Amino acid sequence: MKQRIVLALGGNALQKNGEATAEAQKKVAVEVGEAIAELADKYEIIVAHGNGPQVGNILIHEESASTEKAPAMPLETAVAMSQGQIGYWLTQAINNAFVKKGKNKKVATVVSQVVVSRDDPAFKNPSKPIGQFYDAKTAKTLAKQNGWTVKEDAGRGWRRVVPSPKPIDIVEKKSIIELVKEGVIVIAAGGGGIPVVRTKVLKRLKGIDAVIDKDYAAEKLAELVKADIFVSVTAVPNVYINFGTPEQKALDQLTAKEANHLKKYGYFKAGSMLPKVEAATKFAEAGGTGIITDIDHLKDALKGKAGTIVTR
Amino acid sequence: MKQRIVLALGGNALQKNGEATAEAQKKVAVEVGEAIAELADKYEIIVAHGNGPQVGNILIHEESASTEKAPAMPLETAVAMSQGQIGYWLTQAINNAFVKKGKNKKVATVVSQVVVSRDDPAFKNPSKPIGQFYDAKTAKTLAKQNGWTVKEDAGRGWRRVVPSPKPIDIVEKKSIIELVKEGVIVIAAGGGGIPVVRTKVLKRLKGIDAVIDKDYAAEKLAELVKADIFVSVTAVPNVYINFGTPEQKALDQLTAKEANHLKKYGYFKAGSMLPKVEAATKFAEAGGTGIITDIDHLKDALKGKAGTIVTR
Repeated sequence: MKQRIVLALGGNALQKNGEATAEAQKKVAVEVGEAIAELADKYEIIVAHGNGPQVGNILIHEESASTEKAPAMPLETAVAMSQGQIGYWLTQAINNAFVKKGKNKKVATVVSQVVVSRDDPAFKNPSKPIGQFYDAKTAKTLAKQNGWTVKEDAGRGWRRVVPSPKPIDIVEKKSIIELVKEGVIVIAAGGGGIPVVRTKVLKRLKGIDAVIDKDYAAEKLAELVKADIFVSVTAVPNVYINFGTPEQKALDQLTAKEANHLKKYGYFKAGSMLPKVEAATKFAEAGGTGIITDIDHLKDALKGKAGTIVTR
Repeated sequence: MKQRIVLALGGNALQKNGEATAEAQKKVAVEVGEAIAELADKYEIIVAHGNGPQVGNILIHEESASTEKAPAMPLETAVAMSQGQIGYWLTQAINNAFVKKGKNKKVATVVSQVVVSRDDPAFKNPSKPIGQFYDAKTAKTLAKQNGWTVKEDAGRGWRRVVPSPKPIDIVEKKSIIELVKEGVIVIAAGGGGIPVVRTKVLKRLKGIDAVIDKDYAAEKLAELVKADIFVSVTAVPNVYINFGTPEQKALDQLTAKEANHLKKYGYFKAGSMLPKVEAATKFAEAGGTGIITDIDHLKDALKGKAGTIVTR
């Protein structure tokens, strides 16, 4: 029986040197697609992906060209749009990688809603900057008009900040599992998923403007689909400690306990490796194997020969 | 055994009185979702949908706010974005309709690529207007810059026109069938599908700027998934002949031969009922039942008591 893996592709994975045209991103997707197709003989594969730069650009377009007749879409719907966009590019790239190999393997993107809790403390402290930069006055006017929270971003101007709550469930999990069982490579939980809450009394799903970290969402997906391995695919082959100093050290094998210990002593940066290490560690604690590596070392990392590997 | 139906929802189905905010469209989706959930006990359901107004607005935003750092997405990717957007709204609305009924039925949107032929005569005669209106000079400049074809549109200004080729295959058909077999309500082929061609030598999939008629795409989907019934859900309960004249007559039951006869004599308008009647007739000729009706008469039409029903 094949092992089941969930790959979480970095949000910047499709944008090399910030090249953001569809053409440029599709070109990068071709490489990603070939690396993924390489794994299909040995693994059942689910691909989650980030959407930071893509949803940022969608929001810039939606908001700067919003009119009464063509009003801007809100963040939660923009995430859904980015799932269609990136999902399409990845599906096609993986499809074509199989055509190249002469194989007739199926690929499908499932638009994914990820449930978060209204009581998540993140809603009291919106912290994730999204969309374009504004001057202070415009930012404050927009905040008033739209009920946004805005913050000054490291001297670069003002931006909207949104909550980044933890994922607790994935609405489409059963459909994802059915497809994987049938041998389909599934792209799901794109951009961390479309954030939804369940209303308290009627239990209806309702979209909410927030951004779910894609590593946390992909790890949750890995647990829900009972994956054997969760891989956070990033820009570097390993997690390092003391990166860029003479004491720099690549981490290869770690227990969840060791990872937690390093985390406690501040070895991982919040906007960078921390969510990846936390996701891999959480998955290891749940009994699986958590890996952090780049796309070039993916195949070797799955054999235990590269990457940073976290186990219970 | 349940009968399998494919519903093709009109592109304007989610925009009442042109209200285009996400909030307004989600509100309409709630009604659509409840009508669809009503059918789930008796039918396996696949929902296709148009995207005219939605992809139009996406293109307006993308093109009017395009910059080097945040470049506009091309039409084929914009269709993918609209599939994420509308698919999300419909999925959630149907999900919530089941929650309301106390049922735990699954719903999923599959991002869908629809294959067209490069040799389709439509590529020699781009005719489908999309996106915003321009003055003549701007239109001609954009045409030169982007390789667009532009045309004057009925005195309202200049617009880009794109080919509207016929659908010949749906890349994700097997995944769609697997999900339907597992009892999932599937949303697929949104906006007529993301138009792709297969390259001649290498047989790779490649997106192409075109618009596939959603009724033709949904009918193709209905054939591919071996549906029993294809329904084009539109704004009126029936197809009429001599509409708006004293001789107006609602059509109830038709053979494919009768439908073709009326078509031949010009009874159906190209931008309006013609593609719906052609799709229903094609499906009837393939051995199924083709129906044209509105959402309020959907349930009765499926019992043979309303709508325009085309059979072989």
